[in-house]
Amino acid sequence: MRPHAIEDWHKVMVSGDVSKLPELLHEDAVFHSPVVHTPQTGKAKAMMYLSAATTVFEDAQFTYTREIIGKDLAMLEFTSVVEGIEINGVDIITWDKNGKITDFKVMVRPVKAVNKLWEKMGEMLELQKSA
Amino acid sequence: MRPHAIEDWHKVMVSGDVSKLPELLHEDAVFHSPVVHTPQTGKAKAMMYLSAATTVFEDAQFTYTREIIGKDLAMLEFTSVVEGIEINGVDIITWDKNGKITDFKVMVRPVKAVNKLWEKMGEMLELQKSA
Repeated sequence: MRPHAIEDWHKVMVSGDVSKLPELLHEDAVFHSPVVHTPQTGKAKAMMYLSAATTVFEDAQFTYTREIIGKDLAMLEFTSVVEGIEINGVDIITWDKNGKITDFKVMVRPVKAVNKLWEKMGEMLELQKSA
Repeated sequence: MRPHAIEDWHKVMVSGDVSKLPELLHEDAVFHSPVVHTPQTGKAKAMMYLSAATTVFEDAQFTYTREIIGKDLAMLEFTSVVEGIEINGVDIITWDKNGKITDFKVMVRPVKAVNKLWEKMGEMLELQKSA
């Protein structure tokens, strides 16, 4: 059986409904982008990036393909096609004893996918700012 | 306890000694680069890329930081600094019942790291061709 944190994250990603995201994230959650080195620290910033990601991957054939789940650490591999570019990536997620996500790191391949995500995530984050 | 395939791969990476790599790889092993979409199929090609990788990461503060190990699938996260560029990546490895590595996928972040690896792996593969 999957841990709650992973099960709940799956539901957010599959539905694209981010309303449950705040209760899923730890107050001090950290998000590590596939593009930028500097971590995004705190629930508000993690929310911003993860919401943008769900929008980028909406209607983009997003599928989780492989997963490994440890005690408090999971690796979920995914594939997607964003504007014709095939994206293969991993979510590396940790959670605390209350099932709150504490750390969320994303890496993608190949280089075309990194550049496409850079472009799309930038657009989404700009939209959020101006909303 | 770590599976043999992962234990032996660790030894190759830490020592930089690739002489044990052929016996560790399945004949039909597939390598998936962080840069290029197309898989590299067969032991000879996988050898070529993994040898180049050990050379790129030699003396580059290469350290495995987190790992999750499943039944026949493992995720190993690493950090390294190549020519001043911080590289954070994962090896996603599968093996068969004889402990031979069947699939080896690498992803890295951030974008600067992808570009640096692209450059360095290119150099190493050119050197191998001309050797």
